[in-house]
Amino acid sequence: MRKTILYIAMTLDGYIADDKDDFSFLAPYNGLESVSKSYESLLSRIDTLIMGKRTFDVINRIVDWPYQSIESYIMTRKIEKDQDHIFYRSDIKELITELKNKNGKDIWIVGGGLLISSMLEMNLIDEFQIAIVPKLIGSGKPLFPSMNYLEDLELIEMKNLDGLVFLTYKKNNSIGC
Amino acid sequence: MRKTILYIAMTLDGYIADDKDDFSFLAPYNGLESVSKSYESLLSRIDTLIMGKRTFDVINRIVDWPYQSIESYIMTRKIEKDQDHIFYRSDIKELITELKNKNGKDIWIVGGGLLISSMLEMNLIDEFQIAIVPKLIGSGKPLFPSMNYLEDLELIEMKNLDGLVFLTYKKNNSIGC
Repeated sequence: MRKTILYIAMTLDGYIADDKDDFSFLAPYNGLESVSKSYESLLSRIDTLIMGKRTFDVINRIVDWPYQSIESYIMTRKIEKDQDHIFYRSDIKELITELKNKNGKDIWIVGGGLLISSMLEMNLIDEFQIAIVPKLIGSGKPLFPSMNYLEDLELIEMKNLDGLVFLTYKKNNSIGC
Repeated sequence: MRKTILYIAMTLDGYIADDKDDFSFLAPYNGLESVSKSYESLLSRIDTLIMGKRTFDVINRIVDWPYQSIESYIMTRKIEKDQDHIFYRSDIKELITELKNKNGKDIWIVGGGLLISSMLEMNLIDEFQIAIVPKLIGSGKPLFPSMNYLEDLELIEMKNLDGLVFLTYKKNNSIGC
């Protein structure tokens, strides 16, 4: 069955961006072959992505939409008119059920923190690919905002991508929480 | 010169204990040879430890004082009478300066989060040894409470200790923040 994959980078203290939505701490890694390979490996597995509207707005402020060929779902309470490959939705559980009932490749969960936490609360993330940036920034947008969830994970792989610690976990259903 | 080493475990979402100061999520790892080796390796390097008073109280509620042979400094605003190898102090910067001016082995920074954050704000932690527990617990006591610091780290080593990701970083003084 299609899997949902959270693929994201955070600082060692757990932030995906600073207080001003700036994630330029990732810039030193963007051109590296090791990091590009990891991203290409993700892209080869997925044909769909899901992100929150705030993350969508942040990306649109910075660059032209970079995911033209990927079926993209934007989670928002205020539904807008669908565009080329971009669809607005409000109910994440309904969307995941719909996508898993269709044939297709895996699904990239892009973020941000609120989408991720609400998916964790509903047990909707199957795999975690998290790159840990060797920085402490003290404050910002947390990858995992404080919420009500409990998840046992199983470490599948760890890699050193030129100083980024790249961890892959899957949900561990074999032991209780 | 003697180094300060933060040696601690956190969940993947950044907590050193849950809301009730419970850190039993570490229990499955306590007996493991890989984990014991890492702890013995720390103990062979240090002769001194520093912890916050809240952490001290939590440990004392659970077990007899386990660090008899280690010179132990407890940080508190309310100074108490020193006991065997246990000294109460209120000024962390002064203490670190004093310890670094004496000969001795390295210094283990035990925690908790508030001591660590105030040491980070004053740039007083030299090495970070952090074990990442493969769990998300949603809320609790954060290893890195939101505060005003910015630290560039350099990854020195990564190990898989039976599912615990054990990361060693040192301060990176070669690049600006």
